[in-house]
Amino acid sequence: MAIRAAVAGASGYAGGELLRLLLAHPEVEIGALTGHSNAGQKLGALQPHLLPLAERVLEPTSAEALAGHDVVFLALPHGQSAAVAQQLGDEVLVVDMGADFRLRSPADWETFYGSEHAGVWPYGLPELPGARAALEGARRVAVPGCYPTAVSLALLPAYAGGLAEPEAVVVAATGTSGAGKALKPHLLGSEVMGSMSPYGVGGSHRHTPEMIQNLSAVAGEQVSVSFTPTLAPMSRGILATCSAKAKPGATAAHVRAAYEKAYADEPFVRLLPEGQWPATASVYGSNAVQIQVAYDGAADRVIAISAIDNLTKGTAGGAVQSMNIALGLGETTGLSTTGVAP
Amino acid sequence: MAIRAAVAGASGYAGGELLRLLLAHPEVEIGALTGHSNAGQKLGALQPHLLPLAERVLEPTSAEALAGHDVVFLALPHGQSAAVAQQLGDEVLVVDMGADFRLRSPADWETFYGSEHAGVWPYGLPELPGARAALEGARRVAVPGCYPTAVSLALLPAYAGGLAEPEAVVVAATGTSGAGKALKPHLLGSEVMGSMSPYGVGGSHRHTPEMIQNLSAVAGEQVSVSFTPTLAPMSRGILATCSAKAKPGATAAHVRAAYEKAYADEPFVRLLPEGQWPATASVYGSNAVQIQVAYDGAADRVIAISAIDNLTKGTAGGAVQSMNIALGLGETTGLSTTGVAP
Amino acid sequence: MAIRAAVAGASGYAGGELLRLLLAHPEVEIGALTGHSNAGQKLGALQPHLLPLAERVLEPTSAEALAGHDVVFLALPHGQSAAVAQQLGDEVLVVDMGADFRLRSPADWETFYGSEHAGVWPYGLPELPGARAALEGARRVAVPGCYPTAVSLALLPAYAGGLAEPEAVVVAATGTSGAGKALKPHLLGSEVMGSMSPYGVGGSHRHTPEMIQNLSAVAGEQVSVSFTPTLAPMSRGILATCSAKAKPGATAAHVRAAYEKAYADEPFVRLLPEGQWPATASVYGSNAVQIQVAYDGAADRVIAISAIDNLTKGTAGGAVQSMNIALGLGETTGLSTTGVAP
Amino acid sequence: MAIRAAVAGASGYAGGELLRLLLAHPEVEIGALTGHSNAGQKLGALQPHLLPLAERVLEPTSAEALAGHDVVFLALPHGQSAAVAQQLGDEVLVVDMGADFRLRSPADWETFYGSEHAGVWPYGLPELPGARAALEGARRVAVPGCYPTAVSLALLPAYAGGLAEPEAVVVAATGTSGAGKALKPHLLGSEVMGSMSPYGVGGSHRHTPEMIQNLSAVAGEQVSVSFTPTLAPMSRGILATCSAKAKPGATAAHVRAAYEKAYADEPFVRLLPEGQWPATASVYGSNAVQIQVAYDGAADRVIAISAIDNLTKGTAGGAVQSMNIALGLGETTGLSTTGVAP
Repeated sequence: MAIRAAVAGASGYAGGELLRLLLAHPEVEIGALTGHSNAGQKLGALQPHLLPLAERVLEPTSAEALAGHDVVFLALPHGQSAAVAQQLGDEVLVVDMGADFRLRSPADWETFYGSEHAGVWPYGLPELPGARAALEGARRVAVPGCYPTAVSLALLPAYAGGLAEPEAVVVAATGTSGAGKALKPHLLGSEVMGSMSPYGVGGSHRHTPEMIQNLSAVAGEQVSVSFTPTLAPMSRGILATCSAKAKPGATAAHVRAAYEKAYADEPFVRLLPEGQWPATASVYGSNAVQIQVAYDGAADRVIAISAIDNLTKGTAGGAVQSMNIALGLGETTGLSTTGVAP
Repeated sequence: MAIRAAVAGASGYAGGELLRLLLAHPEVEIGALTGHSNAGQKLGALQPHLLPLAERVLEPTSAEALAGHDVVFLALPHGQSAAVAQQLGDEVLVVDMGADFRLRSPADWETFYGSEHAGVWPYGLPELPGARAALEGARRVAVPGCYPTAVSLALLPAYAGGLAEPEAVVVAATGTSGAGKALKPHLLGSEVMGSMSPYGVGGSHRHTPEMIQNLSAVAGEQVSVSFTPTLAPMSRGILATCSAKAKPGATAAHVRAAYEKAYADEPFVRLLPEGQWPATASVYGSNAVQIQVAYDGAADRVIAISAIDNLTKGTAGGAVQSMNIALGLGETTGLSTTGVAP
Repeated sequence: MAIRAAVAGASGYAGGELLRLLLAHPEVEIGALTGHSNAGQKLGALQPHLLPLAERVLEPTSAEALAGHDVVFLALPHGQSAAVAQQLGDEVLVVDMGADFRLRSPADWETFYGSEHAGVWPYGLPELPGARAALEGARRVAVPGCYPTAVSLALLPAYAGGLAEPEAVVVAATGTSGAGKALKPHLLGSEVMGSMSPYGVGGSHRHTPEMIQNLSAVAGEQVSVSFTPTLAPMSRGILATCSAKAKPGATAAHVRAAYEKAYADEPFVRLLPEGQWPATASVYGSNAVQIQVAYDGAADRVIAISAIDNLTKGTAGGAVQSMNIALGLGETTGLSTTGVAP
Repeated sequence: MAIRAAVAGASGYAGGELLRLLLAHPEVEIGALTGHSNAGQKLGALQPHLLPLAERVLEPTSAEALAGHDVVFLALPHGQSAAVAQQLGDEVLVVDMGADFRLRSPADWETFYGSEHAGVWPYGLPELPGARAALEGARRVAVPGCYPTAVSLALLPAYAGGLAEPEAVVVAATGTSGAGKALKPHLLGSEVMGSMSPYGVGGSHRHTPEMIQNLSAVAGEQVSVSFTPTLAPMSRGILATCSAKAKPGATAAHVRAAYEKAYADEPFVRLLPEGQWPATASVYGSNAVQIQVAYDGAADRVIAISAIDNLTKGTAGGAVQSMNIALGLGETTGLSTTGVAP
């Protein structure tokens, strides 16, 4: 019997990507689609690439609309998930694609989001140690942020293997869909095309504490992250260039071995053959993470670079992967490591 | 039992897109992959987005390598398909993604390609009148060109309905993947980004006689096509803007009705709701054709615009759709009308 | 003594491009800069590419602010120019970059803009017959629309030479800056990149009557224009593909000769050598118009293609060129035919 | 009397940009243009954006062709400049836009370029301490690499002010023109658009020793640089994100003050107002360097980000600026800090 899924926030980029994946998921039947300002409109006018759902009409987001489903995905603005989740039964799987339940530290939440901390849910990055077990059977899941997904997986083997000093430097480029459909001048095509620009420099980006949380847990010591996100002239994709000083004694061979071991059995993470570097085009629309690592002897740093699709593995694909685990389906069901290129 | 498929020319864009689709096809098992200058290399180095096939090694294209398959796809340079096809048995389905067997007129072939005409195979555009029947059970299929696919489907209802004069004017924009992986200066990213430019103006593009062939057959009279292709700063997609003078008596209502009727039951062609126009982004990676039509009373012209993905419906998706019909599978098996957007 | 220029609407794309050109104009001194919602802000925050003016503060648009200048450029929303111009003295040169004073037909204005017709000013396309003379000494100038500039110059020699039937078909691609800084969803970078899409199909685009006005005047008979604009994934540039049935007796040689003669002495229009086609990249940031023409014998049509920068020759460069003529400066002063490429 | 300038390598991107700037330079007359494989062709076919030079024909690069000029610019492949320069008189100003004379260490040259070291010429980055004086009256100039220009100017005040530890981490994004017109598969538009990818990771990029040379000289101690270049989907521009651990006692106020002081009088370097970050679009086609700096207290790092146009300030603009100084012209003659945007 099909799993019935509802999507709150179906008109945005995250919601649209989720629907794209659910349409290809053999065990899911798409139920209610809700929106806020777009309620009452046909999906065909809002997401013209989702032809099979073109005639579906968005309902206003409400407990009634979302009732009667096996899983409810929340693609809502930050701070709105708790209220909605509370109205859904404990037996319903709620997968939150927002930030509300990612951070363990209420202080961090308050510093970066300026509101009251809603709590912590099992964290939907199965590749982290212990995460998969916590997701099995879970009925609440917090999907990670797109940058933390790319950065945590790039550096995990280095920190898990005790090969890197706890001061990471990360510069990441993202496609514009990471900023959503918000109507802001700097997101206009005229401004974006042909331009690279940074934002949230100096530790102010909200994904910073989430990266620190993940890397510190893996390293077993407090890791600082100097994080600089940049906006790139492309719709999708994150390329995260991450580095840290090597711990004394770490060699290129140690580093390579640690990465090979860490990801040997991960279905969605691919350590590329030596000499081949990831490109965001290769993971376009796919749930794959492509990673390469190098040791720079002159600078004595481990450099790990990952490429993901911010909307797929970075958001909606991660959500479906977590749903699969929570519901006991095959983890890779309905997901693919094949990108759409060129 | 799975259908075993071989792909000759697996390192190019058409071959890569075909493999992307075959990986998602539930009835196909991917067999031999062959190449020419890239033989001996791993596919992972050539098509880094096809992770499930990364370890596969390209063989040289030969009758031996292609033997023992149920279907052989040819993604070869123009003029090379006949020799390869001849070496394959009559019971093997051969799907040619090149131009060799598309044109019925040897004179047209010689004018536009400058070599001897190889023949005519059943034409892989099932939406044309009579085409589906000719494909059923066929063991040789000529996949249409990408532009003829977009243009023929845009104008078919107008000509089938006797609504348009037989002088069509077509201006189409294509993504750069339509030119393949050829190393030519004007295809460099530095030249392409931020620039629109025409090429093959004045009727010299090789797809022109194919459009004329299709539209004339549908119209029941000889149709001329003034065709101007332009290169757009995007990797994929064709937007074809097609128009013709309206026949006397044709009204906007006639036009709309003709288009609605023509495509009511076509699984991959979608006439958009009135007022909504197609965008190539909406069909990115999908096998859908999105179409809109209008009647311009002041200029007395029917204007039909279609958007396709040149690599999917325009090449590899059309090939799979034709294979499905030829082999008696469901026509839509392994294909989708869902695009990857934004 | 320097010419003092004021710019009303300095925070938009047209205003910004005008300031870029005026900064390089040896005879102009930049005076008041005004804005509406951005009044009070520094230009450096709004136009970060105009470093020499970064500390200038926008004033509210008012007669006071604009007083005391030799030339006032209006880069205002349609319908607002008349009221401002009325408050400026008759001896001041007012160059309107909006649409208000372009159309000679009040009926056309009302049909396409829905408000009362403001009047007609000398038309700032000096390459049109008679236009240069009308601009000399003028104190009011209506700068043409970007599409009419590209299309009129592409087809002028064909119609002036009596070589083309009076039914033109135009498909043009524009960069997104043509739509201005308006915050509309379809102009977001995420939507625009990788996508081509039409808009204003079927004769509804407001630039249609302006093209008809220009071409009919040149042809000496009423010309219809079937105009389809499309939005391309680039910031700047217009590529206009224009065609019309050849008049009986017109040959390829006639066509070539007509174009060579028409533009032999035009400083900003370049008929390319035969076989070379224009690209928008070649005119990026320049005031040049690159044109090529062909005769398609099979379709019996004349095909003329032009490339301009919509913000330069299509708006601000055309404005400066007209100012130069009106004030008796050298027509090319401060303008260039050198593009920024690649 | 005009300065006569010859350009060897006029068909490439660096040569084309140089010609664009020289066309606007009031004191320069463009003399011989030479090429290698393109000799005999008209420039209009190779650089269609340089309309004023369209009829000029490329000569083969030779001492004869380059003789009789006041300044000769060399835009040649690495390793070819010395032989050409030797044939030109000592009184001729030779400006080398290649790498041959940039590095002071023969060992570094041999390690990174694999050939014999040609020597050291005055270094064309006037903003470095002492560089301007060395350029005055010089008859040989080595123009810096594009990345070293962006990175050295981003970090100069931090190292000159003793505010940063000598281990810099740099991640830079470049437009594709930085790779020149080489016909390589990864530079095809189809591969580049929509994709970010790293290359030369781990210290292997040839610009690394040049950055180390510059920063070490400024810091007065040996600085290591972990440099990761990435290829961005745009034609032009470099965004360099540079950081280093703060030295003990360094505060945000110290950092800001050091940057303000360092660049207060530099005509081409602009420290942006606090809170405004550079974008490559803002320096498109301009000789400006836009810089912002921040102190990240949590990570205890100084983060400096610069944006330049790799072809202008990063290559040809830097060459003209150096020529101006060497010949005693005003340093800013013919150069601009106005970008072409959007």
